[in-house]
Amino acid sequence: MSHDHLPDFDQIRAAAARIAPHATVTPVLRSAALDALAGAELHFKCENFQRGGAFKFRGACNAVWSLVGDEARAGVVTHSSGNHGTALALAAATRGIPAHVVVPEGAVQAKLALIERAGAVLHRCAPNQSAREASAAEVQQATGAQLVHPYADDRVMAGQGTIALELLAQVPALDALITPVGGGGLASGVAIAAHGLRPGLPLFGAEPAGADDAARSLAVGERVQSVVPDTLCDGLRALIGQPNLAALREHAIDVITVSDEETIAAMRLLWRELRIVVEVSSATVLAAVLKSGERFAGRHVGLVLTGGNVDLDALPW
Amino acid sequence: MSHDHLPDFDQIRAAAARIAPHATVTPVLRSAALDALAGAELHFKCENFQRGGAFKFRGACNAVWSLVGDEARAGVVTHSSGNHGTALALAAATRGIPAHVVVPEGAVQAKLALIERAGAVLHRCAPNQSAREASAAEVQQATGAQLVHPYADDRVMAGQGTIALELLAQVPALDALITPVGGGGLASGVAIAAHGLRPGLPLFGAEPAGADDAARSLAVGERVQSVVPDTLCDGLRALIGQPNLAALREHAIDVITVSDEETIAAMRLLWRELRIVVEVSSATVLAAVLKSGERFAGRHVGLVLTGGNVDLDALPW
Repeated sequence: MSHDHLPDFDQIRAAAARIAPHATVTPVLRSAALDALAGAELHFKCENFQRGGAFKFRGACNAVWSLVGDEARAGVVTHSSGNHGTALALAAATRGIPAHVVVPEGAVQAKLALIERAGAVLHRCAPNQSAREASAAEVQQATGAQLVHPYADDRVMAGQGTIALELLAQVPALDALITPVGGGGLASGVAIAAHGLRPGLPLFGAEPAGADDAARSLAVGERVQSVVPDTLCDGLRALIGQPNLAALREHAIDVITVSDEETIAAMRLLWRELRIVVEVSSATVLAAVLKSGERFAGRHVGLVLTGGNVDLDALPW
Repeated sequence: MSHDHLPDFDQIRAAAARIAPHATVTPVLRSAALDALAGAELHFKCENFQRGGAFKFRGACNAVWSLVGDEARAGVVTHSSGNHGTALALAAATRGIPAHVVVPEGAVQAKLALIERAGAVLHRCAPNQSAREASAAEVQQATGAQLVHPYADDRVMAGQGTIALELLAQVPALDALITPVGGGGLASGVAIAAHGLRPGLPLFGAEPAGADDAARSLAVGERVQSVVPDTLCDGLRALIGQPNLAALREHAIDVITVSDEETIAAMRLLWRELRIVVEVSSATVLAAVLKSGERFAGRHVGLVLTGGNVDLDALPW
C-alpha cells in the first residue's frame, strides 16, 4: 500500500489517540526576555523533550502502530541522518519489532549513537538522496521490513500533525504558528491539523537559506530539486517531498529563509533564555520571527522547537 | 524584626499562596536512560525554568511580599554572588520597590548581567563573607532598605520550601528527596515542608567535597566555619547558616559529598539526557545519587535541579 499522499484531519486525530500511550505531552515554555526581543508573545512547543529527543517519535510511532496483521512482523526500515532513525527504532521497540535504519556517512555522531542505543540495525550508505533510497529499498527487499519514509508518508505526517492538536489545546489563543521546513513532514502535518481546528490560521515555515528548496519550489510552482544543501541545520537538509510541497501550497504556508548565522544566534538565545538544549535546526523558527519584525508584532505565536540532540563537544558558537 | 530563625509548616503554606501569582509552577522531567543508570526512578524538579532561572525567586518573592506597610517603601537589600540577587531584583520589581545587591568580586559574569538586567542597583565588595555582610549593612543603613539574607531568613526558607509542596503534589509516590546544600536555605525549607506533609520521608543533601562545611558540621555537631570553599559549584560556596544547620540536624538530612569531577559528569548527563541547561551546582544531586548506588536502588527519588544560569562560552567540559 502506497503512503506517499497527504493524511486528512481525521487521520491526525486517530494518530493522536494511537500514540497517546507512548508519546510525551511536551510542555510549552515562555520567556519574557524573548517576548520583549520579538515584540510578540512567543509560545515554544518543546519537542526536544519528546521521546528520543525530537518530534519525529510522533510520526514514527503512528506509522509503527498503524501496521496491521502480518505487516508488522518483519519490522520497519527507513533512511535517516538522525532523529527519524532514532524515533523509528524507539517506536519499533514499543511494539517489539525490528527496525533497520540506513544512515548516510557524515551524519552527526551524537545522533548515530542515539539510533544504535535505541536498538536499530544500522546500514551505512553514501550521503546523497538516491543512495539513501536505493539502500533502504535493498534492506526492504532482503528483510521484508515495511518502509517508513521520514516525511513523504501519510502516517508520518499524521503523527507530526498531532503537535498542532496538542499545542492549540495548550494555548488556544495562538494567532500564528511556525515550524522548521526540511522534507516537510512536520510542516504539512501541522498545517492539516491546525487548519482542521482553526481554518485560516496564519502558518509559517522557517528554512535555512542554504537549503531553501521549499521556498524556491513555492516561488516557481514546482519542486526544485537542484538545491545542494549547505547548512549547519543537519535536520533540514532533506529536499521537500512531493505531497509535502502540495500541503505547503494548499495551506498557504509562508516560508521565511534564515542564514545559519541568524539561526546560531537564535539557538544561543533559546539556550540562555529558556534554559533548554535544542539543536540548531530548531532555532530557525526563532530566527525567522526575530528577522521578520512587523509580520509577527503583537501576535501570539506558536513556535515548534523540533529537537534537542546535540553534540555537546561541538557547539556552533 | 529578626528573621534568622526557621519557618514552620504553616508559614510555608502561606508562602505558596503568596508567591502563586508571580512564580512559575515548574515541570518535573524524567529520563529512561538516567533511570537505568541510577537503578532508580528519578523525578527532576526543574527550577532552572523558574523565573530568573533559579529556585531563589521563590524565597525572594515570599520575603518581598511579606513586608508590611512602610517596611517595603525603601526597598530591599542583599548580598549574593548570583541567583539570589537576580531573584530579589525580580521580586522587588513585582512590587515596584527598589533592590540593592551587594556582589563579591569574581562572581560569574553571566549571573551579574542577569542581576543588572533584573533592575537591581549593584554594590561591589571583596569576595568574602564578612565583606559581604558589612557592605550589605552599610547599604541598609544608607538607604533604609530591608535586609533579605540569601538563606538564614525564615521568609526565604519558607519560599524555598514551596518546592517540596509542589513536587509532592506532582509526584505523590516519592520515597526520597535530595537537594543541593550551600547555605542551606533550600535544604531546610524543603525539609520542613516535606516532613510537614510526609513525616519520616528520607531526605538527602548533596554538597561539593570542596565546600563540605555542612557535612563536617553535622559530623562534629556544631558549625564548622573554617572551610575555605574550593569548588566550581559557585552556587554552593556559602557556609551553612545557623538556623539551616539546625534544620538539617532536626530533619536527619543525610549529606552526601561529591567531587567536582563527579558533578561535571552528572551535569553533562543532565544536558544530554534531559535536554535542559542546568548550572553545575544543580548537578550535585544526580552525582550524589549515581555514586550512592544501593542507597537509592529501586526508590522513587525527587531531585531538585536548582538553576540554569550558565556562561555558555565557558562550559566546564
